[in-house]
Amino acid sequence: MKARSLIERKRNGGRISPAEWRVLMKAYAAGDVPDYQMAALAMAIYFVGLDHDEIVALTNAMLESGATLSLDHLTVGRVDKHSTGGVGDKVSLVLAPLVAACGVAVPMMSGRGLGHTGGTLDKLESIPGFRTDLTLARATKQLETLGCALIGQTSEIAPADRKLYALRDATSTVESIPLIAASIMSKKLAEGLTGLVLDVKRGSGAFLPELDRGLQLAQTMIALGADHGCPVVALLTAMDRPLGRACGNAIEVEESIAALRGEGPADLMTVTYALGAEMLVLGGAATNRNEARRRMEVAISSGRAARKFQEIIEAQGGNPAVVDDPGLLPQAAECELYLAPRGGVVAQVEPRAIGRGIIALGGGRTRVEDTVDPTVGFVITARPGDVVRAGEPLATVFARDAAGVASGRATLLKAIRLADDADPPLPLISHRVTEAGAELWDADA
Amino acid sequence: MKARSLIERKRNGGRISPAEWRVLMKAYAAGDVPDYQMAALAMAIYFVGLDHDEIVALTNAMLESGATLSLDHLTVGRVDKHSTGGVGDKVSLVLAPLVAACGVAVPMMSGRGLGHTGGTLDKLESIPGFRTDLTLARATKQLETLGCALIGQTSEIAPADRKLYALRDATSTVESIPLIAASIMSKKLAEGLTGLVLDVKRGSGAFLPELDRGLQLAQTMIALGADHGCPVVALLTAMDRPLGRACGNAIEVEESIAALRGEGPADLMTVTYALGAEMLVLGGAATNRNEARRRMEVAISSGRAARKFQEIIEAQGGNPAVVDDPGLLPQAAECELYLAPRGGVVAQVEPRAIGRGIIALGGGRTRVEDTVDPTVGFVITARPGDVVRAGEPLATVFARDAAGVASGRATLLKAIRLADDADPPLPLISHRVTEAGAELWDADA
Repeated sequence: MKARSLIERKRNGGRISPAEWRVLMKAYAAGDVPDYQMAALAMAIYFVGLDHDEIVALTNAMLESGATLSLDHLTVGRVDKHSTGGVGDKVSLVLAPLVAACGVAVPMMSGRGLGHTGGTLDKLESIPGFRTDLTLARATKQLETLGCALIGQTSEIAPADRKLYALRDATSTVESIPLIAASIMSKKLAEGLTGLVLDVKRGSGAFLPELDRGLQLAQTMIALGADHGCPVVALLTAMDRPLGRACGNAIEVEESIAALRGEGPADLMTVTYALGAEMLVLGGAATNRNEARRRMEVAISSGRAARKFQEIIEAQGGNPAVVDDPGLLPQAAECELYLAPRGGVVAQVEPRAIGRGIIALGGGRTRVEDTVDPTVGFVITARPGDVVRAGEPLATVFARDAAGVASGRATLLKAIRLADDADPPLPLISHRVTEAGAELWDADA
Repeated sequence: MKARSLIERKRNGGRISPAEWRVLMKAYAAGDVPDYQMAALAMAIYFVGLDHDEIVALTNAMLESGATLSLDHLTVGRVDKHSTGGVGDKVSLVLAPLVAACGVAVPMMSGRGLGHTGGTLDKLESIPGFRTDLTLARATKQLETLGCALIGQTSEIAPADRKLYALRDATSTVESIPLIAASIMSKKLAEGLTGLVLDVKRGSGAFLPELDRGLQLAQTMIALGADHGCPVVALLTAMDRPLGRACGNAIEVEESIAALRGEGPADLMTVTYALGAEMLVLGGAATNRNEARRRMEVAISSGRAARKFQEIIEAQGGNPAVVDDPGLLPQAAECELYLAPRGGVVAQVEPRAIGRGIIALGGGRTRVEDTVDPTVGFVITARPGDVVRAGEPLATVFARDAAGVASGRATLLKAIRLADDADPPLPLISHRVTEAGAELWDADA
């Protein structure tokens, strides 16, 4: 394996063959190709890109570096949802039990928060006792009995991707569409899915803020899915402001429980229903999105969705009583209202500033090994476009101590921009992308 | 030190400040910044580049990571020559004793061969007993007594550069003008020079084959020298064919000894005199290049230059008798003439093919830790443009065994291209570059 010559070829704009990708990633996973060579290759790919065949080959090489879930014996469809990440994005926590309650199996493998975005695993682990480190055997069993398992990327799944992802994070080579697509799909294709729904974020708080880059990522992943006989549908959703009101770990779980009980904020429910409808159709539990939506509404109003979450929590070692009494979730020592320093229009609620503010409070990670305080964060009730009076409450800071409260207040002062007038925010859902192409979002289609 | 944020900034086309370069390279030399981050940064620099201030800062950071020669007490000028590397380029072996014999001190720090290019240290070490690993103290003493020391980059000199250079070699990030310039100049500026002459190769066998890239490298290094009060003159010379006839370690030493005795091939002497004239003028030993050239011719015809080489060899532990009897150099077990397979014009003698052929014979390195057989190589008497008859000797292969001879013959068949007619080769010396700019080479100027 002459990694150096592959780096040179890629650097010069050449192609790496499927066989070369396979040998390279196997050697990398085995420790025979050093991190410094893979880091140089990742940066070259950042600049030069990969063509479709190379992305397929890299995805397969990472997929084949580990084990896969074998769910063909399940009689129902298996559909997962992946989000490119955002602030306040607790959709997975609502969606997984909701879709499972409607008869589609959801083998959901999530990640931890890193940088300004939160992570589903961190949120789940704020539920006392909740374990996300299930073995594949146990996750399979839970999928058979409950139709849902909420797990992390085990060391069995795509180890080459695990290693490369950590390296990319340390070497500022995350924001590469081919590498993002191959990384996500190598994990998702390991889940034995019959369909996949993507929530591709756009706007200032997204990893790829620009619409055209988001569309490109969606189309890249859709093509990768098609190559493996796994239909993929992507929705482009707004991340120019947080999704929902709560931004933090335990407080997002609390908001998710409220959503499963039918008391979720409108934007969170709109995105959840839109993604869930795609999942139900892909999973064969509904013939169209309107029917799917009605089924989900019933699952919520009947209490079945909340009960499903309770069952999942119990099966994964958590305290199921939190669903009935969210006060059992860990609580911040300090909480304080944040009042509008002036009157005007809410021109912006900047998600990156909020995400970094959560890190400053101790609730996020700058390094993989950081531990996370589940209690801290923000509940932001002000929405872009709201007209507010000076002194009106816009948000609540949840912190460990008075210094945290002060830090949180400074974050909100910067993140919530008040002005005399404001441009409209991005549409909450703007595009729907399938193998047939991208279309503007039509809620009633 | 947030190396990740510096990588990201550079990747996005931003600048790294002098203070940041200093901290980064210090941390890298100390092992506090891992190789994988530096590899990603090097690849980002390959694509994005560095501006002048950044190159100065990186050069200074690497220079300051180690010790420097302090030669201010010498009454004569101190001038070194650096070549960007080629095949058959034994100029240093002739030039250093020749210039020292003319009264300019030459603190020459050279490298080993890597890839298709040879290295001065490997050539010198084919002289029985010759040591290139002098301490800076001993090199300083030898400069005081003999006016010349031929050494390797000790661990004392620019350790950050040593580490980065090895990493760049392993990660295909060598061919970056800012990184090449900073690497060379961080070492050269550590030699306490009053002037520096650069031999920038161009053509198919050069690291940077294109003329404009060679000129850019020359101008970058000239500007770096100017920043440190060290005048730099660069000549652009041809590396579309080997320089001189011998290509290999011991046989290049033999050709160098012949050159010091006035029996060198014309192209080698032309380049040596041109570079030497610049060194004598920069070192204050001649007022103009014509005068310098006459002084060098006398140094050779009088035997002083060859004697100087003998003294250097003796001082550095080598057998000085090789100068009078080159037969004392290690000799190849097999040597065989290579005859023209057809009549015609010599259209090309391709240096990369020759360089790779030397590696195949065991006389070069693909990895830093490879050992080198000093005896093997090629003596190529055919020059581009020569009209030859079928069966006429074009070269001699020096090898360890019959398999080596066969490999060498295959190399020559590929490297020496015979045709019905041929384009003229590159001019041997094409440009002279100083702080004032680049001008076409005029041998009589």
